[in-house]
Amino acid sequence: MTLERIFPAWKWLKTYSRDDLQNDTVASLIFTIMVIPQSLAYAMLAGMPAITGLYASIVPSILYSLFGTSRTLAVGPVALSSVMTASAILPFAVAGTEHYATVAILLAFMSGVFLLILSLFRLGFLTNLLSHPVISGFISATALIVVIGQLKYLLGIQSEGSTLFPLVSSLYRHLGSTNIPTLILSILSIFSLVMMQRHFARFLGMIGCSKRTVQLLGKSGPVIIVFLATLAVANFSLDQVGVSIIGAVPEALPSIHLDHINLPMVRELIPGAILISIVGFFGSVSVAQTYAAKRRQDIDPNQELVGLGLANIGSALSGAFPVTGGFSRTVLNADSGSRSPMTGIIAALFILLTLLFLTPLFYYLPKAILASIISISMLKLVNVQDLRHLWNFSKKEAVLLLATFFVVLIEGMETGLIVGVCLSLLFFLWHTSHPHIAIVGRVPGTEHFRNVQRFTVETHQSVLTVRIDENLFFANARILEERLQQVVSENKEVKHLILMCTAVNMIDASALQSLEKIITRLADAGVQLHLSEVKGPVMDKLKDTQLLKELNGEVFLTQHQAIKALEGCLEEKA
Amino acid sequence: MTLERIFPAWKWLKTYSRDDLQNDTVASLIFTIMVIPQSLAYAMLAGMPAITGLYASIVPSILYSLFGTSRTLAVGPVALSSVMTASAILPFAVAGTEHYATVAILLAFMSGVFLLILSLFRLGFLTNLLSHPVISGFISATALIVVIGQLKYLLGIQSEGSTLFPLVSSLYRHLGSTNIPTLILSILSIFSLVMMQRHFARFLGMIGCSKRTVQLLGKSGPVIIVFLATLAVANFSLDQVGVSIIGAVPEALPSIHLDHINLPMVRELIPGAILISIVGFFGSVSVAQTYAAKRRQDIDPNQELVGLGLANIGSALSGAFPVTGGFSRTVLNADSGSRSPMTGIIAALFILLTLLFLTPLFYYLPKAILASIISISMLKLVNVQDLRHLWNFSKKEAVLLLATFFVVLIEGMETGLIVGVCLSLLFFLWHTSHPHIAIVGRVPGTEHFRNVQRFTVETHQSVLTVRIDENLFFANARILEERLQQVVSENKEVKHLILMCTAVNMIDASALQSLEKIITRLADAGVQLHLSEVKGPVMDKLKDTQLLKELNGEVFLTQHQAIKALEGCLEEKA
Repeated sequence: MTLERIFPAWKWLKTYSRDDLQNDTVASLIFTIMVIPQSLAYAMLAGMPAITGLYASIVPSILYSLFGTSRTLAVGPVALSSVMTASAILPFAVAGTEHYATVAILLAFMSGVFLLILSLFRLGFLTNLLSHPVISGFISATALIVVIGQLKYLLGIQSEGSTLFPLVSSLYRHLGSTNIPTLILSILSIFSLVMMQRHFARFLGMIGCSKRTVQLLGKSGPVIIVFLATLAVANFSLDQVGVSIIGAVPEALPSIHLDHINLPMVRELIPGAILISIVGFFGSVSVAQTYAAKRRQDIDPNQELVGLGLANIGSALSGAFPVTGGFSRTVLNADSGSRSPMTGIIAALFILLTLLFLTPLFYYLPKAILASIISISMLKLVNVQDLRHLWNFSKKEAVLLLATFFVVLIEGMETGLIVGVCLSLLFFLWHTSHPHIAIVGRVPGTEHFRNVQRFTVETHQSVLTVRIDENLFFANARILEERLQQVVSENKEVKHLILMCTAVNMIDASALQSLEKIITRLADAGVQLHLSEVKGPVMDKLKDTQLLKELNGEVFLTQHQAIKALEGCLEEKA
Repeated sequence: MTLERIFPAWKWLKTYSRDDLQNDTVASLIFTIMVIPQSLAYAMLAGMPAITGLYASIVPSILYSLFGTSRTLAVGPVALSSVMTASAILPFAVAGTEHYATVAILLAFMSGVFLLILSLFRLGFLTNLLSHPVISGFISATALIVVIGQLKYLLGIQSEGSTLFPLVSSLYRHLGSTNIPTLILSILSIFSLVMMQRHFARFLGMIGCSKRTVQLLGKSGPVIIVFLATLAVANFSLDQVGVSIIGAVPEALPSIHLDHINLPMVRELIPGAILISIVGFFGSVSVAQTYAAKRRQDIDPNQELVGLGLANIGSALSGAFPVTGGFSRTVLNADSGSRSPMTGIIAALFILLTLLFLTPLFYYLPKAILASIISISMLKLVNVQDLRHLWNFSKKEAVLLLATFFVVLIEGMETGLIVGVCLSLLFFLWHTSHPHIAIVGRVPGTEHFRNVQRFTVETHQSVLTVRIDENLFFANARILEERLQQVVSENKEVKHLILMCTAVNMIDASALQSLEKIITRLADAGVQLHLSEVKGPVMDKLKDTQLLKELNGEVFLTQHQAIKALEGCLEEKA
């Protein structure tokens, strides 16, 4: 059990058979071919040499296979992490320089360390801060920015900037120098990618391919386009007429230049590293859970932090950039027939072989093709329908989505995400600090107590029952004081106030203090406070406190008992 | 009604009688005499000339009386706001300079505007962010820092710094130059202040004073000490031997020097202005509520924002610093026999008269006396008992208090408060993102369903009921996914999962999305999801969503019906 906890791969390794190995080897080969164009494209998106996309697919993948808990998740370069990487590095370095690569490597290392820290302190729950509207607005805006950013490759021009206005104005200024061969290549490749996506699988089915073949080859569009485009560029020497190509691959791994790194830089990279880690982890766990559920498996989010943390440190040591578990990678992995994380290891070896022997094949690969692949996959992420749904469900959450969307577009990803998270916390605090508080009375002839505004109920002039439908904690403690005071000042004849605690699962020190204040204030006003239906765990918590000593009323087990006792007591007096 | 809403004073003014006026005039006179030493001292605490404490007690007090809703609250210089003011200004200016006064005035103006903005957007609930442990740790640490900071006046030496280490080291360096007459004066005044506080009221009772006189004079210790000390300094020319005195009061009101103000300064003062406003508002409302409750009155927190906002703008226009409603001021006001906010207006006029005709009396007032008054009142705020109580109630909240305390001491008030607020949000999110989720079964022979771990209940092999004791929203949406998935992966024979929603008062878009994911994943695993006991408002919210269409199970009104239906269905099949 302990071995499995430290080294989750043991769980599947101990029953791993020769048959599994055969299956996974075939799956890995298919996966490798499919995933290469994506990896190159996302490296370019991160502002790194395309080839580092392959570096980032080797060691991280092996480490995740050994230390992660998902059986299907594929770890490597992922669109969102790559854009965030570029956006985090741009203030420090110019893309394509040695300095830039050094910062990227540092960022991957810091991300890895941060993920391990989260795991150590079991802080994975922090990703819960990313509410659905924030993530949705963030992804849509980021995708839009990425597509606009890719226009420079699609048109073969220059452009700078990582937010909407600088990017658009820079593109506009350079629009005159559009490279026509590049533009034609881009249009052709986008057109054929879209057509293949829509019709290739059906076409394969029509010409009589088996269902399995259709599933495998249906997603091979990018591979075929990359192959054809590279061939075209090489044959017609399109690089001579301005089509930008990947070119020669450096012989050695990029190395980190320690003299480029200094403490202020590390400090300024921290927010970026944190956001990349949290967003990456969030996305990765979502994908992992979706696949685990299909197979009735389970994943351990805390161990996922370890797996992804080590993967990022591995990526840094390979001279690459931040990685995580990606949706489209994982779909490719699952579709290629993988049965276990062993595919992650075998595919890594295949990619290493590619890197060692096949890189000359990538020489003529035009950057416009990679930009086409990126643009198409990112455009799918711009989700307008989600906004419509949200608008119908809750205006406030739709506003949250829009706010995140526009701040990301105009101010950048980090600011947008932070604004979104703060706003969602604010909205939640607003909601929870305005709890539903009802005055209740007895439904005639029963022991049930319901809201006086919704039901015809019996109430008593000098005994008032208030039910609060929320946990009592700092965000609503003060409101409770205010509301109870209001209730008492509006009902001058009240002598007994019963607080009905059916919905109170938790009470903190701030609420406790508020309750003590309420008791004193009510006593000053000549009103006794009673509690009813206090839950077991809450009562345990209150037991040793000053509150029960200061309480001038009683604690009743049920609301019915409370009313019976207090009404009886009043009748006696009368 | 509308007039009363804009101008709350109308509520009491329309029934205000000649008799009330007589009473309030006497009360105001007593209050004025009592409150003057305090006002001077807190101006000094804010780093401003002592006399500005009187400026800050005139216009703000009148404006609050007209626009505030509390009948008892006294608004003017308050210890906590004054310390925070000094701490916010120190990075920009040297205390005692014209520049410093300008920044203080600007800060009061910004505070006022910020409070009005809060009122406009009804954001008063933001003060709910200040949980009890954070406020407690903050006040204790601030009080301690203030007392240490007053040592320079008590010893008659120089010192700088606003956090623990710089302050202590600076004091230590100057300790050699202690002024002996000042030290003797300080010791005498502290000793007599403490003695009077403890025994003066009793002594007055013993010599036969009426209860009312005892109540009035019992708190006059500071007035008497100030009077005697001023007399002593003047008579024995103690200012010639190094006792620092208030000296001559400037003829004109301090004026704001617009050329000292620039946009970057305004921007950097924003956090300070926000914290001063929020903490001041928080304290003020607490005091107001305590007194309102005693008299069965009600206060309107949103209108309080208006009253305090205008008071601060008024303070800025009088050339003073941020003000708020204070605890000790309000006690003096209530004890002096005030019946309405009219005392605030009359007392303001008395203070204006003092300022016009009696300032020469303050010439020889030694600063050491004011420092003694401050030190004694602040030492009472260091609350060790609270920590002990909190430790017994909840270790986590005690840690929160200690964290806030030490960060305030070492890093300063603003950082401490922000760290405290962030930590309490973090703790709360941790709690709420780990909701109590129980598998429940039927208590035999009843329609009640309870936790299988606590009760002997009937369960069914292929029908599982899970009860979640928390609202469903972004912070726990993902955990719900994880836990349900875990439950299903641990109970491989389950075909029906019932989610019992008794404790769910709210559901947001993130939780909705998680539920949709859960439905899909469970369907993939061959499990149907059902809902039971969904509350009315939650059902209203769900009605128009995709969720109910995607749900492959049913929505049952009660848990009992759900079990009956599903078990019946299974028996039929068998």
